[in-house]
Parts: sequence; C-alpha cells; structure tokens
Amino acid sequence: MGMREDPKTWFAESVEVLTYNRNQRVWSIIVTIFGDLAQRPGDRISGAVLSRLTEPMGIKPEAMRVALHRLRGDGWIQSEREGRASHYSLTESGLAQSRAASPRIYQRSLDTPEAWQLSVAPPARQGGKGARDKAMRRKGVLPVAPGVFLTSAQAETVPDSLTMVGIVDHVPDWLRHKIAPAPVMLAYEDLEIALDRFAAKCEAMPPLGPLQIATLRTILVHVWRKALFSHADLPPHFFPEGWKGPACRSKALDLLDRLGRPELAVLEQAGASP
Amino acid sequence: MGMREDPKTWFAESVEVLTYNRNQRVWSIIVTIFGDLAQRPGDRISGAVLSRLTEPMGIKPEAMRVALHRLRGDGWIQSEREGRASHYSLTESGLAQSRAASPRIYQRSLDTPEAWQLSVAPPARQGGKGARDKAMRRKGVLPVAPGVFLTSAQAETVPDSLTMVGIVDHVPDWLRHKIAPAPVMLAYEDLEIALDRFAAKCEAMPPLGPLQIATLRTILVHVWRKALFSHADLPPHFFPEGWKGPACRSKALDLLDRLGRPELAVLEQAGASP
Repeated sequence: MGMREDPKTWFAESVEVLTYNRNQRVWSIIVTIFGDLAQRPGDRISGAVLSRLTEPMGIKPEAMRVALHRLRGDGWIQSEREGRASHYSLTESGLAQSRAASPRIYQRSLDTPEAWQLSVAPPARQGGKGARDKAMRRKGVLPVAPGVFLTSAQAETVPDSLTMVGIVDHVPDWLRHKIAPAPVMLAYEDLEIALDRFAAKCEAMPPLGPLQIATLRTILVHVWRKALFSHADLPPHFFPEGWKGPACRSKALDLLDRLGRPELAVLEQAGASP
Repeated sequence: MGMREDPKTWFAESVEVLTYNRNQRVWSIIVTIFGDLAQRPGDRISGAVLSRLTEPMGIKPEAMRVALHRLRGDGWIQSEREGRASHYSLTESGLAQSRAASPRIYQRSLDTPEAWQLSVAPPARQGGKGARDKAMRRKGVLPVAPGVFLTSAQAETVPDSLTMVGIVDHVPDWLRHKIAPAPVMLAYEDLEIALDRFAAKCEAMPPLGPLQIATLRTILVHVWRKALFSHADLPPHFFPEGWKGPACRSKALDLLDRLGRPELAVLEQAGASP
C-alpha cells in the first residue's frame, strides 16, 4: 500500500479480481477481443497476439485453436496465412454483429426510447413459441409473456404481429422481476464488487505493457458484456429496486477509459517479441 | 301476398322465423325481457305478463318458475306479492348490469375508441389464466393471447397488468379470425337471414296486440344479444372480411323501431284480461 507494486504481481492480481466469474467460454472471449480491438474493416490480429492476450487468463493453445476453428466455421472470423503466421479478422457478418452489439456495451448513457411497442406474435405451436421467444431474447428483447414482446417503437418484431405503439407509464413488480430475476441481480452485485476491487487496485497502477492492458480490457469487457446480455435492453425504471445496471455501466466504462485502448500495430509489435 | 294476413298466423310465423336459434335458455329470455321493457327503477312486471310473453315461444310455466327462482337466487331480480299476483323487478345489481349491457345492444353506431389498450396480466398458473380469460370474455374483452387483453383505453384491466395505450393501425388476419371464428361468422349469417325474413313479413304487418309486440321484441332482442355477446366488443375493422355485424345491427334496430315498445302499464292491462 502506498508503495508502487511489482507490475507482474499487480497484473496477476488484477486478472484474478476480474476473472471472478469462472465460466468463460474461449470463443466468447475471442468475440470480445475482436469487438474491442479490431472492429474496423481491415483490422486483423495475429495468432501470436491472440495467444499472448489469452494466456494470462489460463486459456491453453489447444482450446484457442478449437475456438478459432469454431468461429471460422460459424462465419464470424476469417484467417489468412503469411508465412508461418496466421492473421484473423472479423468477416462482414462478424463485423456487422459486433457493431450492432457495441452501443449497448460502450455507450455512457443509453438512448431511452420514449415510445414503446408491445407486440403479440401470431399463435404458434408450443415448441415454435419457445424457439421464437429464445430468438428474441438473443436480440435483447424481452418476452413479457409467451409470444408477447416489449421493444422500442422502432424495433423490428415478429412478422404479422399485432403491434401497439405507446407509452409505458407503470412497470408492475412482477415484470421487473421477470426482466431481472434474482440470479441477474446477484450477478450484477458480484460484478460491482469486482469492478470496485479493480478500481481500488488501479489507484496504484504500475506501468503496463500494451498486451497486459489489452488482456485486462478483454476480461473487463467480457464480464461486463456477459452481465449485460443476460437481460433485455431496457432503461433502469424497468428493473427491480436496487438495480446495479447504471452503476456498473459507469464503473466499467471508467475503468476502460483509465486503461486506454492500445493500437493493433503496437500490440503486434509487442506480440512479435518473446 | 298483397292481401293482409290473418294476425294469428302472421304472429305465429314471425315467432317461427325469429326463433330459428333453438338454443334459448329461459333465464336468459327473462333477462332480455327486463332489459328491454323494465330498465327504469320502479319498473316491475307481473308473473301473468311474463307468462303471456313467453308462452308463444313454447316456454312452459314450470320452466318459467325455475328460471325466476334461479334469477332471484342470483340476486338479479326480486319479487313482491300482491294478493295472488307476483310482481318482479330488477335488483340494484340487475339494473346496473342490464344498463351496462344496453349501449352495446341498442346503440345505432358504436363509439369506436381511437385509443386502445393492450394489457398483459401478471403471470398466473395454467388454471388461473383460463378463468381470468373467461371472466374477461364475459365482459366483452378479447384475450389476444393468454392473459393479454385488447380493450379501449379507458377500460378496466386485470390489476397489476403491464398496460400500453396507443393506436392499432393494422389488425393481422390471425387476430381477425380469433375475434370472430367461423361459428361466429355463420351465426351472423343465420341472424341476417332471419332478420331479412322477418323484415319481409313486416311489409304486411297486421294490427298486433301489445303482448304480441312485446313477445316479438323479446325474441328479436334475444337473438341479437346472443350473437352480439358471442364476440368481443370491437369495431368492424377488427373482424374478418364479410363481417355481418354492422348490417345485423342496423337491421335489428330498424325492426325494433318498427315494432315500437309497449308501455308496461299497457302490457299489464292486456295481461290481466284473459
């Protein structure tokens, strides 16, 4: 305390603090890396840099290869070989999806729609209904009841729905708890604790290398994104009392600003040295 | 044809034409009679008149007694004895419910709400949901999906619902067919045929007694009310192509105007004579 810490220890401890959430999927980490560092067309990241970024998180080269293979199969990323090096970049579709998710992750204040849309999808068989609700959830849309969706007025809905555009002036408690059930509320509390602990560490941040910075960014964005995508994209007054969403948003973004974002060229240079 | 018909034959045939719908419940006929003839506080109808009105429909005195007993038990009507005669009248609650139903039955043109309300009731167990939907249907409200109701903006909804007030600019086909499924569409076609046949008979209407007029009114209001309360109270653009609702409304109300409404005192006088 007070004394400047050893960078290596500081970095290891920070990684430890931020990876409180053990359930990390490698492919999802890679999606986070590209979304955070390589979202301009033409941006690419070498296999060497990807390994250097993920190694401190305890990700093994073999797991990395499997995940890259899967993401290539899904059409999310593409690869080019140059001599013995592989370079990866987002595909058209990967870029588009990554960009679509970015505002929700990186914006300081969310645009709160004034007008809402409640839409009732055409009747479907039991199975079809479940699949439809799941697909809408993936888009950040809340099924208020089976086949009934609450979105901003401009959002796309299931074709042939009954839609009503208007104002939501009262959000009943049962709906708040549906929007953020107990596990989501708890996940945010855990996130806030981790963010506070990391913020405390940052008070005595030692000089870090660009790869270390990028690794910390990745973990930070990843836990934030994970919390964020566990619930629908709705403004704070739709959530239960004690909702930590806005607090976590501002804390996560403050920490990302504090870390800064290293340039890809700088990362590649650092990645090339042993 | 052309020649004035025998009143007795004409009346019997008219009753026949209008009672095409055999499924008449006696208690429901009585509700219709009071709603049509005795809706002012203080209005009362003697047992003798009730018998004279319903006898041409083939309703037996015993069935009448059972129905009156049931309606008294339900708190819909009350009775007073005067010597050997019984007089029946609507209770407070019977009056209120009767009045609440009247605009939908007797108004020439329905007030079409500009603003609608889509409300999503709090989650309920399977059984509770069904009961709730049924209760709302009885109020003329459509369950668009289980627990989801479409009403005018001013209407009362299930407590603690998520409600959204706005405009409905497109009514999808699946919803139109949910609002008026095939049996409802067919019932209206049958009704229109009966109304047209009765209107044709009315071209040569003989002089009728007040009891005969009241009987015809009762049957007419009853079949109209029965059709009407088989679907939600929504304006024509919510119904499938070929919807006969507005046509039947204007035809039924024209015929009621044509018949006129006999005064209760006149009916009692006629009922007292053998």
